[in-house]
Amino acid sequence: MRPFSKLTQGLVGQPMLEILTTVTAMEAAGRKVYRFEVGDSDFDAHPHIIEATKAALDSGHTRYVNSMGIEPLRQSISRYIERGWGFRPDLDQIVAMPSNSVIDFAVRCLVDPGEEVIFPDPGFPSYFAVTNYLGIQDVRVPVYEANGFRLNPDDLEAKITDKTKLIIVNTPQNPTGAVMTREEAERIAAIAKKHDLWLLSDEMYSENLYEGLQHHSPASVDRCRERTIILHGFSKGFSMSGWRLGYAVGPAALMAKMGLMFQTIYSCVPPFIQYAGISALDGDRQLLRQRMEFYQHLRDVMVGALNEIPGVSCAAPKGSIYAFPNIQGTGLSSQEFAKTVLEKAGVAVVPGPCFGPRGEGYVRFCYLREESMLREACEKMKQVLAK
Amino acid sequence: MRPFSKLTQGLVGQPMLEILTTVTAMEAAGRKVYRFEVGDSDFDAHPHIIEATKAALDSGHTRYVNSMGIEPLRQSISRYIERGWGFRPDLDQIVAMPSNSVIDFAVRCLVDPGEEVIFPDPGFPSYFAVTNYLGIQDVRVPVYEANGFRLNPDDLEAKITDKTKLIIVNTPQNPTGAVMTREEAERIAAIAKKHDLWLLSDEMYSENLYEGLQHHSPASVDRCRERTIILHGFSKGFSMSGWRLGYAVGPAALMAKMGLMFQTIYSCVPPFIQYAGISALDGDRQLLRQRMEFYQHLRDVMVGALNEIPGVSCAAPKGSIYAFPNIQGTGLSSQEFAKTVLEKAGVAVVPGPCFGPRGEGYVRFCYLREESMLREACEKMKQVLAK
Repeated sequence: MRPFSKLTQGLVGQPMLEILTTVTAMEAAGRKVYRFEVGDSDFDAHPHIIEATKAALDSGHTRYVNSMGIEPLRQSISRYIERGWGFRPDLDQIVAMPSNSVIDFAVRCLVDPGEEVIFPDPGFPSYFAVTNYLGIQDVRVPVYEANGFRLNPDDLEAKITDKTKLIIVNTPQNPTGAVMTREEAERIAAIAKKHDLWLLSDEMYSENLYEGLQHHSPASVDRCRERTIILHGFSKGFSMSGWRLGYAVGPAALMAKMGLMFQTIYSCVPPFIQYAGISALDGDRQLLRQRMEFYQHLRDVMVGALNEIPGVSCAAPKGSIYAFPNIQGTGLSSQEFAKTVLEKAGVAVVPGPCFGPRGEGYVRFCYLREESMLREACEKMKQVLAK
Repeated sequence: MRPFSKLTQGLVGQPMLEILTTVTAMEAAGRKVYRFEVGDSDFDAHPHIIEATKAALDSGHTRYVNSMGIEPLRQSISRYIERGWGFRPDLDQIVAMPSNSVIDFAVRCLVDPGEEVIFPDPGFPSYFAVTNYLGIQDVRVPVYEANGFRLNPDDLEAKITDKTKLIIVNTPQNPTGAVMTREEAERIAAIAKKHDLWLLSDEMYSENLYEGLQHHSPASVDRCRERTIILHGFSKGFSMSGWRLGYAVGPAALMAKMGLMFQTIYSCVPPFIQYAGISALDGDRQLLRQRMEFYQHLRDVMVGALNEIPGVSCAAPKGSIYAFPNIQGTGLSSQEFAKTVLEKAGVAVVPGPCFGPRGEGYVRFCYLREESMLREACEKMKQVLAK
C-alpha cells in the first residue's frame, strides 16, 4: 500500500480527548470516575440558547449560507466586541467558524513551513498540534508560577528571530488561569508592531474572569486592523462546547483568506447554530454574571480543597475554568500523580506536560462541576496521597 | 505587513457560492431571481430529522464527544452501508465529518505536494479547490456527452503516471448526473489495485438515482479495507445541507489519521447534529422513495422545458440533482449564456467551466425547485434566447 502523506507523521491527538477515551472505558466497566479532565462545564447552556437553536431549525434556517457567517451573527459579534473591547470591527473583519479552526487556518494563512510561531509554555495544546503537523517550528516562552503564570513580555521578545512570523498569546490562560494586565497587553501589541509580526490573541475565556477583573486585550491597540487577530468562541463563556461555534476578528484581507479556506473545507457553519450564537451574545448579561459568580464559588471550593491535600499547593487563578496546582510536594511526577489519582481515587486530571514541558510538576483540573463532586474527589485524593 | 503564507495564493472560491453572493445582492435590490445555482433542495428535510435534532438538544447532547463520531451514529452508518453496498464496515472504518472536509483531509493525509490526483472533467469544483491550494497537481480525465458523461476507465488509466497517488471518482456525478455501471465500478477498482493507488469514491448522490437504477460503487470490491474511501453525506439524499454532516468509510488506519486531523481542527461534529444523522439513516425508507419519485418528476419537467429553448439540448440525467444541458446551439459561451439569462431572464445557473475546462458549452441547473418555478424560468429563457 502506498504510504500516507508526510504530514500525517506530525498529527498528534489532543491529550484531554485521549484521557476521555480511557475514562469512558473505565466508566463503561462500572467504575465511578470524578472527571476533571475535559475543559467543559457540567452546567448546561442557558435555556434561551437551546430554544433559539430549535426555533432556527423550525424556521428553516437549514441550508447553505455565506461562508463568512450570516450577517446578523456578525453584527452581534461586532456589537459584542465593541462592548467588551472598546472598538467596533467592520463585518468583513469577522469570520465565524469553530475556534480550533481559527488556530489552524490563521497559522496556515500566515506561516510557511520552516518559519516560527511563538506561544506560551505551558499553553493550550492545539497550538502545538497545529504547528507540528504543518511542519512549522514551535518556539515556547516559559511562564512561571512565581509571576502568577503571566507571560513576561521581555521573555516573549527574547524568543523572536528572523524566522518568527506569528505570536500566539492567551488571556485568561489555559491551563494556568493567568490574566494579562493592561500594561502587559499593550507591551505585547508594541512588540508585535516593532518586529512586524502577526499576533493571534486567544481570548476564549474572556467571560471567565473573577473578582471583578477587567479583560485586557492586545487587540485594543490596533483594533484588529493591522496585525492582531482575536480568537473567540462560545464554548467556554456560554457553555456551548457542543455547538462548535467560534469566530475570528482580524484584518479584512486575512479574514477573507480564512473565509475562503473555510469555504473550501466546510462550506459554512450550520445556520441554526449561528442563530444560537446570536441568542448568546444578545442575551441577558445578568444571567452570565450570575453564572460567573457561581463559577468563582466553585473555583474557591476547588482551590480550598486542593490545598488540603498533602504536597499540593494551588493559588486561586484569576480567570479561565481551571485550577493548575503545583504537585511537586507529593514527590510524584505529573504523570505519576495523574495515574495514581485516576487508579486509586477515580479522579481524572490532565498532567501538566500535556500543555508543554514547563507543565511538569503541575496538573490541570476543570472545576465546573457540582460542588459535592469537587469536595468528594479532593477528599479521596487526600486519603490516597496521605498514604 | 508581513505577507500571507504561500498557500493562500492557491485558495479559490467555490463558484456556486460566489454566484450566490451576486444573486443575493440582486434580490436585495428587489429583483426576482429564479435560482438554480445552488446544489440544494428547496424542499425541507423530513420533519422527523428536525425533531430528532431538537430532541437531542433537549436531552443535553450538547458537549464534546468522540472526534470520530458518536458510536450510535457510526453503527447507523455501518448498517446503512451494509444495506446499500452489501458489506458491513467496522466502526473504526468510519469517521463523521462534513463531506467537504473528507475531500480535504483525505487528500492531505494521502498526497504530498508535487504528487498527482486524477479526477473527472467536468467534476465537483472542490476537488480542484483542495488540490490547488495544497500545491498538489490536478490531472483531469475528460468525460464526454456522447458517452452519457460516464467516465471511461480506459481514459482514466491513461492518465496514471508515477506521480499519481489518488484517484477521485464520483457516481452519480456532479454536474452531469452520469451514473456508473457495475462493470465500470469494478474496472475502476481493478485499475486502482493494479497501480496500487488510493481511490476516493464520492458517492454523495447515491440516494439520488432515478428510473429504478441501482447504485454501483468501486468500494464494493475491497470493502473499504484496502485502498477505497467512500465519501458520503446527508446534504443531498436527505436534504440536510445546513447540518454540514457527512462521513468517510475507509481503511481503519487512514480513518484514524483523518479523525486525528478532524480532532485538531474541529474537535468533533456537534452531537445533536449526529443524532439528526441517525434519524435520517434509520428513518422510513418509504418517505425517501416518495421524495425521489417527486425529484424524478421535477427532473422530467426541467429537461422537457429546457429542450424547448432554442439552441439548448438536454438528455435526462440518470442521477444527482442537476440538469447539465448543452447550450452550444445558442452560439453563446457558457459564461455568456449564464450572464444573459441572469440579466435578461433573472435565471441563475452555473457556467459549465466552473466544473473544469471540459464544461465549456454546458451550464448546470439544480432542479429541486417548485415545478411552477422550473416552467416559468424556462419560459423566460426561451423568450430571451429566441430574440
